[in-house]
Amino acid sequence: MTDINNASVAASLPSMKIYDWYDGPYPARVRIALAEKGMLSQVEFIPVNLWTGEHKKPEFLAINYSGTLPVLALNDGTLIAECTAITQYLDVLDDNPVLTGVTPVEKGVIHMMTKRAEIEFLDAVSVYFHHATSGLGPEVELYQNAEWGEKMREKAIRGMHYFDGVLRSQPYVAGNTFSMADIAVTGGMIFSALVNLAVPDECKALKAWYSDIQRRPSYQQWQALVEAGRPVFNP
Amino acid sequence: MTDINNASVAASLPSMKIYDWYDGPYPARVRIALAEKGMLSQVEFIPVNLWTGEHKKPEFLAINYSGTLPVLALNDGTLIAECTAITQYLDVLDDNPVLTGVTPVEKGVIHMMTKRAEIEFLDAVSVYFHHATSGLGPEVELYQNAEWGEKMREKAIRGMHYFDGVLRSQPYVAGNTFSMADIAVTGGMIFSALVNLAVPDECKALKAWYSDIQRRPSYQQWQALVEAGRPVFNP
Repeated sequence: MTDINNASVAASLPSMKIYDWYDGPYPARVRIALAEKGMLSQVEFIPVNLWTGEHKKPEFLAINYSGTLPVLALNDGTLIAECTAITQYLDVLDDNPVLTGVTPVEKGVIHMMTKRAEIEFLDAVSVYFHHATSGLGPEVELYQNAEWGEKMREKAIRGMHYFDGVLRSQPYVAGNTFSMADIAVTGGMIFSALVNLAVPDECKALKAWYSDIQRRPSYQQWQALVEAGRPVFNP
Repeated sequence: MTDINNASVAASLPSMKIYDWYDGPYPARVRIALAEKGMLSQVEFIPVNLWTGEHKKPEFLAINYSGTLPVLALNDGTLIAECTAITQYLDVLDDNPVLTGVTPVEKGVIHMMTKRAEIEFLDAVSVYFHHATSGLGPEVELYQNAEWGEKMREKAIRGMHYFDGVLRSQPYVAGNTFSMADIAVTGGMIFSALVNLAVPDECKALKAWYSDIQRRPSYQQWQALVEAGRPVFNP
């Protein structure tokens, strides 16, 4: 996609707001999807501070009952939460789906692998973080189940091995094409790095795939956004 | 959709196999989706016995790494697990999406509400069942975390109240039209009944919506399939 095409498509798209936090692993999924679609400039990001638990306060729970980021807000008041749902919306918005598949089989397999990336890897890392580490701190983590968190850490490591196996036989998570499923596994890699959960050395295909992902313009635009969005603390 | 239309569409569709268990709440989601689409007759159901843990054995884990039902198997060897992914595939297979939305906003909102139905209700009931009750029995439930299971029971009850609130202001879970999201909440209602988790009396809108759902031909076809598929025990 050229910049000229992006510009003409962008002019016809609605303006959007996204509630998120600049370096959150789930928000990263939508920011990378936006970058892949050339839509980053369409979006105003509204910070919701995870570390002070803004996402669990009544004002935000009225926006998203589940108390999670990110949430896409359209001009007409429509709110879309959940990364997969937001990505699905964005991907068909410009009549040029490149992340969620074109044929029925592509759509099915991409949705399957995205969900699998969540339950076997990304969500497992998240539960480990919130339950078996200090997570977002005692004022946000009001209930923790450390044993469950440890189980999820083990599950996430098994998930890394699973996706390593997948990527030994095909270039991308859902087959021959980069998709929403690759972005979901990327979210898992980003979260793992944040919580110092190392990818086992033997997962060579997973590591090689991630090196390629990190060279994509979308990942680099996300990284630049993270740097730009980092709050400035005045000690 | 008339029977004549169904027949002509059916003739052009691929034959499919679905690994499932006749009265499982997740399998119910795909069976109801198939009934809504007039595609039930296209499918051969292959029983995978949950109560003997067939879904956790290596043969089945090779079909679905996550060890869950249902799984759709296409003639070309493609395997699609996860109810949302299977429904997404089925819904666009006949170029007549009626369950996953037509416009970008519909697709986004339906996927969001389907995921919300899972995390806030259906999946929570499932975790309660597998962790805080005897579940599928000691030979299948090799690890249980009863405290986590109880937390998920409380979450499911809160979820019932949430969806009751949604259904007080609109006829269906994702808006004005029956969708995949209604089927996901139906899965939660089916699972709740199996584990004797009562819907609170004050959830009148949820109960009224479910009465309507149970009068739909798709639900009644599912119920007939359950009866037909029930194994015959010879004591």
